[in-house]
Amino acid sequence: METSIISLAEELQHKINFKTKPLGALGRLEEIALQVGLIQQSENPKISHPHIVVFAGDHGIAKTGLVNPYPQEVTAQMVLNFLHGGAAINVFCRQNNIQLKVVDAGVNYDFNRITASIDFLDHKINHGTKNYLEAEAMTAEELEAAVEKGKAIVEKIYKSGCNCIGFGEMGIGNTSSASLIMSAVTGIPIEECIGKGTGVNEEQLKVKTETLKTVKENHASRTTQTSPLTILQCVGGFEIAMMTGAYLEAAKRKMIIVVDGFIATAALLAAKKLDDDVLNYCIFAHTSGEQGHEKMLQYLNAKPLLNLGMRLGEGTVAALAIPLIQSAVNFLNEMASFETAGIANKKNG
Amino acid sequence: METSIISLAEELQHKINFKTKPLGALGRLEEIALQVGLIQQSENPKISHPHIVVFAGDHGIAKTGLVNPYPQEVTAQMVLNFLHGGAAINVFCRQNNIQLKVVDAGVNYDFNRITASIDFLDHKINHGTKNYLEAEAMTAEELEAAVEKGKAIVEKIYKSGCNCIGFGEMGIGNTSSASLIMSAVTGIPIEECIGKGTGVNEEQLKVKTETLKTVKENHASRTTQTSPLTILQCVGGFEIAMMTGAYLEAAKRKMIIVVDGFIATAALLAAKKLDDDVLNYCIFAHTSGEQGHEKMLQYLNAKPLLNLGMRLGEGTVAALAIPLIQSAVNFLNEMASFETAGIANKKNG
Repeated sequence: METSIISLAEELQHKINFKTKPLGALGRLEEIALQVGLIQQSENPKISHPHIVVFAGDHGIAKTGLVNPYPQEVTAQMVLNFLHGGAAINVFCRQNNIQLKVVDAGVNYDFNRITASIDFLDHKINHGTKNYLEAEAMTAEELEAAVEKGKAIVEKIYKSGCNCIGFGEMGIGNTSSASLIMSAVTGIPIEECIGKGTGVNEEQLKVKTETLKTVKENHASRTTQTSPLTILQCVGGFEIAMMTGAYLEAAKRKMIIVVDGFIATAALLAAKKLDDDVLNYCIFAHTSGEQGHEKMLQYLNAKPLLNLGMRLGEGTVAALAIPLIQSAVNFLNEMASFETAGIANKKNG
Repeated sequence: METSIISLAEELQHKINFKTKPLGALGRLEEIALQVGLIQQSENPKISHPHIVVFAGDHGIAKTGLVNPYPQEVTAQMVLNFLHGGAAINVFCRQNNIQLKVVDAGVNYDFNRITASIDFLDHKINHGTKNYLEAEAMTAEELEAAVEKGKAIVEKIYKSGCNCIGFGEMGIGNTSSASLIMSAVTGIPIEECIGKGTGVNEEQLKVKTETLKTVKENHASRTTQTSPLTILQCVGGFEIAMMTGAYLEAAKRKMIIVVDGFIATAALLAAKKLDDDVLNYCIFAHTSGEQGHEKMLQYLNAKPLLNLGMRLGEGTVAALAIPLIQSAVNFLNEMASFETAGIANKKNG
């Protein structure tokens, strides 16, 4: 097997190098073309039916108001906004012909008889997690259900013909969960993993930091075992746990995985700890404006495509990055080579 | 006038701020949305019939082989590649529904009876410039013809309904011309304006640097007057001069101008020196891998959208950036506001 893999990499690199352009002149797109070719084990890779799946869930901690400037109700309100097509992720998916699915992983609201303009999947594990200041965020059974649902969702999407997927999230308070997961997985002190989330001020940031320090201490006996499943159970969210399962399944199916921002990368940290192979399938959409994301990316040796100062989540930058990945695939498939175009590829003396 | 402009900026900012997202969470896209709204003097801007125009021209210096690793013939060969749809710019324009036009501004080849799959405009000023080691690159009449042709091309495209345009170029040896223009306009020493272009090695870079120093000395008496027209006449290229005229006309027509890489930005330096107002219409696609481009961008206080290590020219990154500009316009027009979506936009206590 090893020799055939090496030879495909060489063949892809040769194909890239002999396109009608100076060596390396397409920069990161050349690296993406190589990666996608290796993922699909093909010199002529294709992107088929790209999807963004947005997982939504509520966090018990959000009811305290200690970590989040928006009230918990905003999670459900934003899910309704997704379903009516009015959020940023709707706009970008429509523009870029990306299929959007929204999953209720555990929103504290009952979406009965909702008319949606997009696919809405009800996989509610519970009406929000427990407040992890006081208890573990979820039971072991809830965690397992969330991870397995995440896998099942991706399996179904894969079987519908999709080979390129990005994951987004919505959940008031979930930057806190992401910071706690980041700190537990990477060992980076919690203070360095905390940012302003979606708009807390300096004073609120202090309270958020103190709160998360307390959370970390309260769960120290279990999360320092650094089993990612234990970490997710103690301080995760239903949407994050479900996304973790989704990453695992997407890698198993050899899909191109487009990694969005801070929370999506926190879920990836957990997935990678469960299966290192996941990283081979990942293309990192951007460096988020949320402090801590850059450190996550460094930890993963990731080279993100975009740096637009965005910090919205929802899978928005994954949706913006998919056309660039498509451009990489297109140049590989459609550009002429020096030979076919009859162009000199020699240095002058 | 002033008050109405201020009030449109305020109205646009208000519209952006009350979209269903945290304040500022769409980062650079918010700034682009504001800029495009101000360019079009509208709260509901639109991108119509985006175009890329690639100007091609040959450089007398290229025949010496002192500055360029590829032979001069490659300019014509690449133009034929454009016309047959096989170059990177063809691929990206097809993908992103951008109309592509290729202009023979002064290629040293006669494109007779060519069947082209795209629009090809014959505005040849001459069969390449003169070698600026020995003479001025072009006559005053040639320069004027090139600049005026550039204006006329854009005027016609504008009248066809286009309001968003990017300029690309092809011309073996034209990074040298761009470096000389950059040095003359900005006052930055020529050594710091020279890069490896499309693939010269360390040894060739030394020769290129020495050659361009000599060129600069030879033309010092005229180019230190820093009239951009004189600079273009002495050390420019037909494609660069034509692009300079194109920038001027695009700004006059209040089009969105998408600025590509090193050579396209050199032409912009000349255009800006002729009319400061041009910059208001410019969105900078990227920081090129070509050394010197970053300094040009700093000189212009430009914040580029992408940094993919690309250094191909042809307008390729402008073509990749247009979908991001479209995303900015789309979120402004299509996203729900907190009010219309019925979402809480208040801080918790």
